[in-house]
Amino acid sequence: MEKQTLAERTAERLTAMIRARNYGPGDRLPTEQELMEQLTVGRNTLREALRFLVSRNMVVIRQGAGTFVSEKQGVADDPLGFGMVGDQRKLTRDLLAARVILEPQIAALAAQNAEEEDIQRLEEVLLQLETRMRRREWYAELDSAFHTAVAECTHNQVMARLIPVIADGVRSFAESVEQAEYEETLRSHRRIFEAIRTHRAVEAQAEMQYHLLFNQKRYGGL
Amino acid sequence: MEKQTLAERTAERLTAMIRARNYGPGDRLPTEQELMEQLTVGRNTLREALRFLVSRNMVVIRQGAGTFVSEKQGVADDPLGFGMVGDQRKLTRDLLAARVILEPQIAALAAQNAEEEDIQRLEEVLLQLETRMRRREWYAELDSAFHTAVAECTHNQVMARLIPVIADGVRSFAESVEQAEYEETLRSHRRIFEAIRTHRAVEAQAEMQYHLLFNQKRYGGL
Repeated sequence: MEKQTLAERTAERLTAMIRARNYGPGDRLPTEQELMEQLTVGRNTLREALRFLVSRNMVVIRQGAGTFVSEKQGVADDPLGFGMVGDQRKLTRDLLAARVILEPQIAALAAQNAEEEDIQRLEEVLLQLETRMRRREWYAELDSAFHTAVAECTHNQVMARLIPVIADGVRSFAESVEQAEYEETLRSHRRIFEAIRTHRAVEAQAEMQYHLLFNQKRYGGL
Repeated sequence: MEKQTLAERTAERLTAMIRARNYGPGDRLPTEQELMEQLTVGRNTLREALRFLVSRNMVVIRQGAGTFVSEKQGVADDPLGFGMVGDQRKLTRDLLAARVILEPQIAALAAQNAEEEDIQRLEEVLLQLETRMRRREWYAELDSAFHTAVAECTHNQVMARLIPVIADGVRSFAESVEQAEYEETLRSHRRIFEAIRTHRAVEAQAEMQYHLLFNQKRYGGL
């Protein structure tokens, strides 16, 4: 019990260290030896603390290479517990409703705040997405990446962490896209991108709203 | 390795079972013996799978009483990894911006969809919150509970799971409330409640917007 508490405290101190040093995704933590000295804890306690941070998606341990801040940045797997929800069709409707509320305003904020490198990143994702769509290949993951990249243009960290969670939640829905709808989906993503690229916030918001309402109708109404 | 995979698969099957049987928070799972038979796995594998579900906040094990679906319903602790964010002041601003986007429309949906028992529950939370505020006691937890209860009035499961996450994130902010602002905060929560109770969606939205914009200004602008 005492030992577990020590490992938990060590995990908290490691989190505080990551925060204080402003480590970002992919940054390497000090070696095990250095961490043991800096935190004045033994190897077993440190390893237990690191395992806890791994389970929280905060760090990844690469055998022989060291410990790194996870690209997941502490966002849990299925963070909101959607996997437990009994009525998955209602969940999909609820997710679409949440997206209709959130994402148009995110698109507006993205158009306003996007910097040159954000726009380049967004265009890269769009081009990959368009290629997949034209080939009628599975594109749900890239669709989610596009909406996440839009959220990242806002420079609001809450949006950037939240959007992948609610966009991934409707992934099964995106898989059921019908052939005839590819063209519309292609066009709306391109229009959203163009509005953000040219910093037209009002149009970005309207295009995102249209895109999501189209999806919502397609899924069978509100 | 093989064994871990079996425990993981068992955890997934347990999750599917919870989903399929539509178990809710506080519902009791079958006994260890029953689960071993139903899933045809050994005790060690089952226990490892259950520990995994505990770590994901999906179930709780009460010694001697059994295994129950967690009140947290699979929502992870710090699900979006806010604890790792270096600039906590910016994070608070980002959280407030997200709430200004989301919650007014949630209030409107709450006014539209709230049923009698939702309104009773919301009023209970409000009365507790008002008592705390009048006594100038720490009320951040009840403030978060009020906004969560509003989200539950929508009957949208995504909102109900998401709002506590972003409302709790600004808890430290709520702790710094100044005396002069208690009255305004008291009044706005009461007005939000009254609008929801009488199903006036437009007013509920406006009152929530005013309340959150007031907080945003107070924290130092957008």
